[in-house]
Amino acid sequence: MLAVLTGGTGGAKLVQGISLETDPEDLVVICNTGDDFVLHGLHISPDLDTITYTLAGISDGKKGWGIAGDTFVALEWLGRYGGESWFKLGDKDLATHITRTRLLSEGLSLSQVTDHIRNALGVKAKVLPMSDDRVETRIATPAGEISFQEYFVKRRWQGEVSGVSFAGAERCRSAPGGLDAIREATGVIICPSNPVTSIGPILAVPGIRAALKETEAPVIAVSPIIQGAAVSGPADRLMAAMGMEVSSFGVAKAYADFVDLFLIAHEDAALQEKIEGLGIKTIVASIRMGSLSDKRSLAREVVARL
Amino acid sequence: MLAVLTGGTGGAKLVQGISLETDPEDLVVICNTGDDFVLHGLHISPDLDTITYTLAGISDGKKGWGIAGDTFVALEWLGRYGGESWFKLGDKDLATHITRTRLLSEGLSLSQVTDHIRNALGVKAKVLPMSDDRVETRIATPAGEISFQEYFVKRRWQGEVSGVSFAGAERCRSAPGGLDAIREATGVIICPSNPVTSIGPILAVPGIRAALKETEAPVIAVSPIIQGAAVSGPADRLMAAMGMEVSSFGVAKAYADFVDLFLIAHEDAALQEKIEGLGIKTIVASIRMGSLSDKRSLAREVVARL
Repeated sequence: MLAVLTGGTGGAKLVQGISLETDPEDLVVICNTGDDFVLHGLHISPDLDTITYTLAGISDGKKGWGIAGDTFVALEWLGRYGGESWFKLGDKDLATHITRTRLLSEGLSLSQVTDHIRNALGVKAKVLPMSDDRVETRIATPAGEISFQEYFVKRRWQGEVSGVSFAGAERCRSAPGGLDAIREATGVIICPSNPVTSIGPILAVPGIRAALKETEAPVIAVSPIIQGAAVSGPADRLMAAMGMEVSSFGVAKAYADFVDLFLIAHEDAALQEKIEGLGIKTIVASIRMGSLSDKRSLAREVVARL
Repeated sequence: MLAVLTGGTGGAKLVQGISLETDPEDLVVICNTGDDFVLHGLHISPDLDTITYTLAGISDGKKGWGIAGDTFVALEWLGRYGGESWFKLGDKDLATHITRTRLLSEGLSLSQVTDHIRNALGVKAKVLPMSDDRVETRIATPAGEISFQEYFVKRRWQGEVSGVSFAGAERCRSAPGGLDAIREATGVIICPSNPVTSIGPILAVPGIRAALKETEAPVIAVSPIIQGAAVSGPADRLMAAMGMEVSSFGVAKAYADFVDLFLIAHEDAALQEKIEGLGIKTIVASIRMGSLSDKRSLAREVVARL
């Protein structure tokens, strides 16, 4: 059994590759839920949805979010009623949020709801929120704290960031099965997701980091940074804001206490020795995932090391 | 100012006519909310919506519910997740229910929410729920009690009915402005809606019936029954179940304590004398409303008597 830690967009590409190169029934995908938020009164879990839609083969690969071919009829009318329309909710996607909100209000946990949704969409891999409790990634800016979605979607990651925090993380519990999945896995994969706001919240869940250190399985990470820049999204900006070195080395350093093997891009070959100085075996590989074939070959490269 | 009491489909036709034949800013439309229910975790107010959509000129006249040209993308996906799909919620319509549910959860009253929605849709007439409190029309059947929507939509008004009750009515209060609208109106119109489950719940709101008796304005009702049959819907079956005579006379008798003028169909001319025996002035008119022109001419007929 493989345990995979991931955020949304970037990580979803590798998750897709892994699900095609292994038996998806043997996968447990532990997702960031720090970006979860309530909009229009609906509970939205962007990373859980991106991963579930990706595994169901219905994700919109071009946009990197939502369901392929979705329509936006309800959203336009929500806007007509004065509702916020900066977060693009498709009609099919909306059904996911309506269902999640209803089931949560009926007393199901977020992991039970996530299981219900992935089963309905025919997803064989287990998709697990990092926690059933509410953890909220907060972005500190000179003008005050904002939610991750406001920073990421509404402001398109522009403007100065002075800090990132995970409200509720210290009191939350790992979702049922999460710690066991890491401890009992034959391999653990840290996807090339934002180390600050995608993997960071998962590592902030009490017990996760310890489980990663303790597990006997090899822990492999893929760098989300190539030549000092994020492959996608604001990872580089947020790493800089957190005082991290914006490079593959900076990512490796953040994971040094639990990662056994680190995959970096050919362009970063010069960093290999420096990263190995952290005690992490480092492999230079093709880690850009433009095509489905790229995703599958990187997945094969990763899985072959386990 | 005119006060209009109405349910959904049948009443909406006359409401449309009245809004075109008078200044809509002078209209207060008091709607049945006994059919309101929660589905997919969303608060649905079928009659408020039918009236608001009708007044906004966006209702689906052919179907008699919903918004013209609406799509049903989200509903299909709600069904995929195991959600109930017997109540046909369009994508635009869904935005109304999502907005209502959010605003109610933020502490607004149903009448404040209704005002927000009709203003957003450019409706000049005041649309008022009969009450901001929860009143639920319950249909007693040999197999137990069911909600009105389950009876009306899911079971398509088939099966035996042994009684109708309005749970919560005795403790509810008329929505702000409702009683005053009736008392201060220059005319009150009871639409040709189901006397049992559309007008019945409104009359069960404490104070409404008394206001109808007390108001100095003429109170005019239009019969929803022609030749012993409902023009649309289950009014005839429900009247029979309640032990009422299924005829224009039966409707007039139910309203005899407050109606001054009653409009019946030419086909029911023979009942005129019997109804006038109840002390209600009765007029024979063309009360079927197939076309927009029918709606407007019946509205003119009604308004001319005020």
